[in-house]
Amino acid sequence: MSKVIAINAGSSSLKFQLFDMPSEDVITKGHVERIGLKDSVFVISVNDEKITETLDIPNHEVAVKLLLEKLINYKIISSYDEINGVGHRVVHGGEVFTDSVLITDEVLAQIEVLSDLAPLHNPANITGIRAFQQALKNVPAVAVFDTAFHQTMPESSFLYSLPYEYYKEYGIRKYGFHGTSHKYVTERAAEMLGRPVEQLRLISCHLGNGASIAAIKGGKSLDTSMGFTPLAGVTMGTRSGNIDPALIPFIMEKTGKTADEVLDVLNKESGMLAISGFSSDLRDIQIEADKGNERAELALEVFAGRIHKYIGSYAARMSGVDAIIFTAGIGENSAMVRERVLHGLEFMGIYWDPALNQTHGEEAFLNYPHSPVKVMVIPTNEEVMIARDVQRIAKK
Amino acid sequence: MSKVIAINAGSSSLKFQLFDMPSEDVITKGHVERIGLKDSVFVISVNDEKITETLDIPNHEVAVKLLLEKLINYKIISSYDEINGVGHRVVHGGEVFTDSVLITDEVLAQIEVLSDLAPLHNPANITGIRAFQQALKNVPAVAVFDTAFHQTMPESSFLYSLPYEYYKEYGIRKYGFHGTSHKYVTERAAEMLGRPVEQLRLISCHLGNGASIAAIKGGKSLDTSMGFTPLAGVTMGTRSGNIDPALIPFIMEKTGKTADEVLDVLNKESGMLAISGFSSDLRDIQIEADKGNERAELALEVFAGRIHKYIGSYAARMSGVDAIIFTAGIGENSAMVRERVLHGLEFMGIYWDPALNQTHGEEAFLNYPHSPVKVMVIPTNEEVMIARDVQRIAKK
Repeated sequence: MSKVIAINAGSSSLKFQLFDMPSEDVITKGHVERIGLKDSVFVISVNDEKITETLDIPNHEVAVKLLLEKLINYKIISSYDEINGVGHRVVHGGEVFTDSVLITDEVLAQIEVLSDLAPLHNPANITGIRAFQQALKNVPAVAVFDTAFHQTMPESSFLYSLPYEYYKEYGIRKYGFHGTSHKYVTERAAEMLGRPVEQLRLISCHLGNGASIAAIKGGKSLDTSMGFTPLAGVTMGTRSGNIDPALIPFIMEKTGKTADEVLDVLNKESGMLAISGFSSDLRDIQIEADKGNERAELALEVFAGRIHKYIGSYAARMSGVDAIIFTAGIGENSAMVRERVLHGLEFMGIYWDPALNQTHGEEAFLNYPHSPVKVMVIPTNEEVMIARDVQRIAKK
Repeated sequence: MSKVIAINAGSSSLKFQLFDMPSEDVITKGHVERIGLKDSVFVISVNDEKITETLDIPNHEVAVKLLLEKLINYKIISSYDEINGVGHRVVHGGEVFTDSVLITDEVLAQIEVLSDLAPLHNPANITGIRAFQQALKNVPAVAVFDTAFHQTMPESSFLYSLPYEYYKEYGIRKYGFHGTSHKYVTERAAEMLGRPVEQLRLISCHLGNGASIAAIKGGKSLDTSMGFTPLAGVTMGTRSGNIDPALIPFIMEKTGKTADEVLDVLNKESGMLAISGFSSDLRDIQIEADKGNERAELALEVFAGRIHKYIGSYAARMSGVDAIIFTAGIGENSAMVRERVLHGLEFMGIYWDPALNQTHGEEAFLNYPHSPVKVMVIPTNEEVMIARDVQRIAKK
């Protein structure tokens, strides 16, 4: 029996989940918010109870020390020696990392180099890794990359129609994200369908605040909607998804903004927030749309419409599809979005049952039994994927 | 019997085609190149013979005068009075023009305002209009817009997921282009299929140096791949099509280029030219791909692959499709591209015959008789559409 901790470190946050392995039971989980700010928040589950503390946590090292002390104090573990491995979510693995990897000095240096491609995320992930290296010196740590699952994409999927030297010199290509989630639901879908993953053509719709669609053939990512960054693809909460690239110079000229400022608008002030005019939260938007707010209704139409079109596109990419998977906050919980996304796809063999669609946050099939294409809800679990990779890789 | 001339004026060129109406017979056609440069070229067909002259043509007014004189000299017409109407292709009609329109001072002023949205094209079109106004004072002239056909798109298709005021204040939305061509093949497809256009769901693939795909439902454009500008959508000869918008600031930072310089790269140094590394011309690329050049092969895969995915996407948009149409230079002539685009779409009812696909530049069906979805080649004819609109509108 061994214990493995899965970590997701942001610039001012740290999420954790402690697993018993190989049973995959969650022993505890929690998160730290507002690291480096006043009134930091520490939340941990003890015996199914959520305990929240407000205190000042100046940096990630202090956060990690506190977390480990709490594990002892709450008698969740009796000694740090019980922790056999740490798994860290790392956003960008570039073309270097095609799988999770044991963290060494060389690996850490590589992740640092890749900060060029993910300046907002990789540095925060590194801070989390370093803090655990300090606190748990001899415990193996594994990096699990959001991009790794998509490294199986062929050049015809990942290459932009841009000067080839941009790819060779600057690493400009489609990387894709949410890879750990797409991989998790792929494995679960094969189990639920009772078919070898090698035979399956899946379309995975990870719909949360960020949203990405992936075409997964034979268990391998063949194409995905996010691109060089998580901005690309479908409309999201505050992100624009794809737009005519000629708009950036045009918006710069009209508004007097710099390119970086326009990019900020595309990332933070666009998407459903911009179309609805009042919220990036699907639930708020749905309430207003139900009351007859036209721009709220339009935000829903655009959001679901883009996903709907990706399903057609990726079915074409794989010459058909065996199952559509919905996952992440919206995908798991919004019957309304799923209905809009699935509407009118009978021509490609998708027959779904409105009654079965009334499901929330649980594994379920939504299709009629006779439907050639299956439709599934699979709650994602990136943490357990991280724990599994720690088991697999730290053992070697 | 009446004669109508269709004009397509570029910044240094002018194409013309003189029609007998309503028979739609082409009486003569030709073009002027290098207007305003040394050694301008004037080409005109006389009794099926191409006559080429090299001389200096300083501006569009001189080009138009010369053209009209030649029509008399070659005894194609005996008097200017025989010309009953002039039709001008105009690239951008914004949201103002949803159909072709008789050119008045107000209309011309509007087209000038819309130059803001098409700074490369509308001013050249206006130059052509003014030159004919000078030369043929009392002949009615009609403007035919590339964007007009797409004005039926609903907001859910044309609106970007950007701050709503960008749409209201700056006209930022999807306009779409090649409308005259998409409309022409739509009408021909309905005739060839012997079905009312109101019942048809068509996907039109206009594949030339520029390329755009349109979803046409009930004879009306429902969605199209080009956007605010003709840069968006699929990979083209030298244009990138859609890319992650975050790449523009990244490329600016890496190369030291301004936003406008990057846009220039996306328009002129990208697409198949960039992927192949040597040509934007499909025929050159095919020759090298056949010899085993990997990047040439990759350019073909990417080009056809993006179109293939749009077909899936637009079939989903319309809950199925009745016919796929190929038109324009590549669409009409490249069996190789059509084969790659159509490959593996049986799951959506597309069964095509490789033998029938060996057709070039002629109207043809490519599908097996039993195929639920028809596949057609229809050579486009934007000039006759212009002449028809002159007839329809100038008569009022």
